[in-house]
Amino acid sequence: MTRLELMDQVVSWVNEAAEDVKEKLKSPVLVEEKSNRHDLVTNVDKETELFLVEKIRKAYPDDLILGEEGLGDSLTSTSGRIWIIDPIDGTLNFVKQQENFCIMIGIFEDNEPVLGFIYDVIKDEFAYGGKETGVFLNGELLAPVENIGLRDGLIGVNGGMFARNTLNAQDIALKAVGIRMLGCAGLDFLNVIRGKQNAYISNLAPWDFAAGIALSEPLGLISSKFDGSPYSILDGRQYFVIATEKTYADIFKK
Amino acid sequence: MTRLELMDQVVSWVNEAAEDVKEKLKSPVLVEEKSNRHDLVTNVDKETELFLVEKIRKAYPDDLILGEEGLGDSLTSTSGRIWIIDPIDGTLNFVKQQENFCIMIGIFEDNEPVLGFIYDVIKDEFAYGGKETGVFLNGELLAPVENIGLRDGLIGVNGGMFARNTLNAQDIALKAVGIRMLGCAGLDFLNVIRGKQNAYISNLAPWDFAAGIALSEPLGLISSKFDGSPYSILDGRQYFVIATEKTYADIFKK
Repeated sequence: MTRLELMDQVVSWVNEAAEDVKEKLKSPVLVEEKSNRHDLVTNVDKETELFLVEKIRKAYPDDLILGEEGLGDSLTSTSGRIWIIDPIDGTLNFVKQQENFCIMIGIFEDNEPVLGFIYDVIKDEFAYGGKETGVFLNGELLAPVENIGLRDGLIGVNGGMFARNTLNAQDIALKAVGIRMLGCAGLDFLNVIRGKQNAYISNLAPWDFAAGIALSEPLGLISSKFDGSPYSILDGRQYFVIATEKTYADIFKK
Repeated sequence: MTRLELMDQVVSWVNEAAEDVKEKLKSPVLVEEKSNRHDLVTNVDKETELFLVEKIRKAYPDDLILGEEGLGDSLTSTSGRIWIIDPIDGTLNFVKQQENFCIMIGIFEDNEPVLGFIYDVIKDEFAYGGKETGVFLNGELLAPVENIGLRDGLIGVNGGMFARNTLNAQDIALKAVGIRMLGCAGLDFLNVIRGKQNAYISNLAPWDFAAGIALSEPLGLISSKFDGSPYSILDGRQYFVIATEKTYADIFKK
């Protein structure tokens, strides 16, 4: 199976999952707290992860899966093919707004991002692809992102990091022309890959960034931990940045 | 002319303006800085204000108009009927994202908000109405907003006020379940009147809040300056809050 065929197969799975999520939003959603009151999970998060994990297990039984809701595997190495799933990214928005959330899948091979999928379910905006296939938004090939500097664009930043000025996140964000907080990593990645924001700084788990990295690297964007060291899909939450090349340089300018 | 007929007339003007804005987005937009690099204006802001001002002047020559781009009148009193216009609210988003902006009109009579209009042009979400007509979203009557407390909902807050903790804005916002920064007052008002956010705190001019107040008071929401004193359409920028009744009380709880 070629990379393009794999992309098309996963596109069809995510489309099916998105239709199912829209259908489920017509009935009340069951909400539980996970680690704290800001960290929710619903039956839709769990059922969507189960749907995707079953599709992957059946088609690719030798692959490993890392899923936010824990239905996948425990990873100890980055070798082989790994699927990284966030079934509903932006669960707080999902619960409080019934919009502004995404389904995300990132596929890594031997620690290299090869395909990403981010579907804004309610806006029906679906970005997918990778470095070998090209990156598409609803079937249209995306061009590389315009390389603008920190002062010339909008920046997405995590509220807690901004409040505490973690690793100078507040000082840096205030240099941008405007600050946005969307409550959904996938929406920030969609904005960055479409040139609608020039950076996004947050505290992310691998399922929050895997899809976004696979989509953004082919478009000329740079991502790393927020101290400049390489991100890791084996670590838990990590301070993370994605930006245009110029903005990335501006962020780390002394 | 009844209030309902006036509402329908303005709905048709705003629909026409929105179609025109969509058309203009197909060509490059001319951007200028106003007071600073965060404060932009485009030809579309100016042309949309001109279109609306001409409609109002022709139909209601005795009314006064306050417009963000200065094509209206200078107000010295709140008596009579006053139209308060923000032709493109969220101009930074308009320029950088070509979405996430609104057309807004508020109508006040003898200092009372009587009708409001907020049109999210790209999402085609149009809220309009007031206390006598009811409040509609795309033709559907909106119910009063669920009265939830500060800790149980999402809050929109201005980035500068949050960074500087102006009047405790940061301390208050961090008590909410999540913080959102959208860069467009109209989008925050739309979220609050639809129960998708329980509050919005910002530094607003009358054209930023007039429409939102007219739409939100009939739905049980409370607004004032952020020190608890009454807002004023004669003042310039003022620290401003709109919230559900419970959240408003939570905000001012010592």
